[in-house]
Amino acid sequence: MQTETDLPDLDPEDTSPAVLRALELLRRGKRFLLVGHVRPDGDCLGSQAALASVLRSLGKEVFIVNPDPPEPRYGYLAAEVDFRAWQGGTLPVHDVAVLLDFNDLARTGKMAPELARAPSKKLVVDHHVLPTEAWWDEAYVDVHASATGLLVLRIARALGAELDQAAARGVFTSLVTDTGWFKYSNADAETLTAAGEMVRLGVRPHEVYSALYQRRSHVHPTAIGKLLSRTRYFADRRLALVTQPIEEAREEGLVDSDEVLDILRSVATVEVVLYLRELAEGGVKLSARSKSDYDVHALSRAFGGGGHKKAAGATLPGGLAEAEEKVVAAALAGFDARA
Amino acid sequence: MQTETDLPDLDPEDTSPAVLRALELLRRGKRFLLVGHVRPDGDCLGSQAALASVLRSLGKEVFIVNPDPPEPRYGYLAAEVDFRAWQGGTLPVHDVAVLLDFNDLARTGKMAPELARAPSKKLVVDHHVLPTEAWWDEAYVDVHASATGLLVLRIARALGAELDQAAARGVFTSLVTDTGWFKYSNADAETLTAAGEMVRLGVRPHEVYSALYQRRSHVHPTAIGKLLSRTRYFADRRLALVTQPIEEAREEGLVDSDEVLDILRSVATVEVVLYLRELAEGGVKLSARSKSDYDVHALSRAFGGGGHKKAAGATLPGGLAEAEEKVVAAALAGFDARA
Repeated sequence: MQTETDLPDLDPEDTSPAVLRALELLRRGKRFLLVGHVRPDGDCLGSQAALASVLRSLGKEVFIVNPDPPEPRYGYLAAEVDFRAWQGGTLPVHDVAVLLDFNDLARTGKMAPELARAPSKKLVVDHHVLPTEAWWDEAYVDVHASATGLLVLRIARALGAELDQAAARGVFTSLVTDTGWFKYSNADAETLTAAGEMVRLGVRPHEVYSALYQRRSHVHPTAIGKLLSRTRYFADRRLALVTQPIEEAREEGLVDSDEVLDILRSVATVEVVLYLRELAEGGVKLSARSKSDYDVHALSRAFGGGGHKKAAGATLPGGLAEAEEKVVAAALAGFDARA
Repeated sequence: MQTETDLPDLDPEDTSPAVLRALELLRRGKRFLLVGHVRPDGDCLGSQAALASVLRSLGKEVFIVNPDPPEPRYGYLAAEVDFRAWQGGTLPVHDVAVLLDFNDLARTGKMAPELARAPSKKLVVDHHVLPTEAWWDEAYVDVHASATGLLVLRIARALGAELDQAAARGVFTSLVTDTGWFKYSNADAETLTAAGEMVRLGVRPHEVYSALYQRRSHVHPTAIGKLLSRTRYFADRRLALVTQPIEEAREEGLVDSDEVLDILRSVATVEVVLYLRELAEGGVKLSARSKSDYDVHALSRAFGGGGHKKAAGATLPGGLAEAEEKVVAAALAGFDARA
């Protein structure tokens, strides 16, 4: 059986009819609305910054409207690009609405009815698996691309557009945020080569790194320290668990799950890491990661969550002790089922 | 005044007389001895793996002999490349000895007298600043190159050699270990483009990442947790300090300094981080990092150590309390001097 990483890359110069139709829509449109999902992440915002600049360089009018404003860490993008947060009311008049890094209109939250009502063509630019029922007009999709920003770079080339610094920073942001700064298995040759090209256009990697990952509160080291000092192992240290009770979350703030999970994953024997946090609004948030073929998506799905095979999550009702008991039991059963 | 990162890159296709002479030596030599420094790091070992493969592909005989064997984390390189650790006795007969990633014969430790005695030409391939007094025969040096492995890649191109998978893994290892996995300010366009090329040749970034950074002991999360939970700040939280007493080091093992320092650097206000560890053999090891223009090299030099402006270290005599008092006082004076 082929695993995800064994599949060949699609040709970056894909000239399938679907791709050509999507490019034609971008070429012919005059007024564009770039739309993101709720709580837009680095790939979503980076792709928007890049595509906006590319389309403007071709003389087109471009608006970016998202359900939520960018997080402060993306301030270096927002300083150059006008990311509007939708406040209700009508959307800017546009010929083409482009959904970047997602493909389900519902993920635009309260904007969805307005968007559906707008008499514009809908174009999806994405690297996630599309639903079988096509509701969009055109789609530029490659599920093998590490980031949607890489697709925007391909689009820029196909349209013969030059990337300015803002566009380059956008593409670079997409690449690094969706590949765990080139650490994950989706960091392929095209990704690294494209990143090199963006640096040649003026992006400074260490400045982007600092903006994204070096703006934490002074309580962060002690908070992560307390969490990690309570690490527990199961299944011959193949499973690692940390938990954060609500009192500690209130006092220290939520600890960035990626960093905790990365440190736990660095233990040689560990295949699966689980991080359970009690939420202020009730319930417990589960973040799960795998560094083997253990499928944490299946585990999360059992609790109503989702994600990918190697990174998934869910929200459980009830308290921490109850959630821990259920999740650990299910995770251990997963090991037994594989054995 | 120009800062380090403002200086232009040298032309990767440098054709200065010194470079041409170095290439000529590589072209004409038949038997090569590749030499590393004591406790060879990723750039040193990666460069050796790559250059050995390049020279062998040109029909030359190549030996790699280092003062110490590779650390276990470099096992994936050692599986394909014969890194010999010098056990005393005579060195293999060779026409050219190549020093990779260093330029001071003394850094080969006990091998130095043997090497000096050998009637071979000495070639330095390095990205560190050379001493003014030239003791070598030829030198291929670019202080702007992020890693010595990048110089080996340039050499391979100049000699018209193809890189095989072992060579590509060598170059990739050099690049990632010397740029903090593309995070530091030396991660330039040439570095990322070269990394992309190595992935195209078959390197899998996440596998290298796992080999290098995901083979820790199960006590690591709790050890790093205990350390971080004792984080202290000085100078309006611009200076962060953690210390590890010898009892804890004995119990938990030494904690990888890079990871601790990275987490402390992730605090927005922090410019300088200091990590002091009591050593089993007596004395205290200082590791210092800067994320601003604060010069930690100057700080370390005051205690007999060395390094770069942004990353430096020293070993102090005496106990932890004494070392802490001195180092913190000197570090704070450094802030005052800049103000």
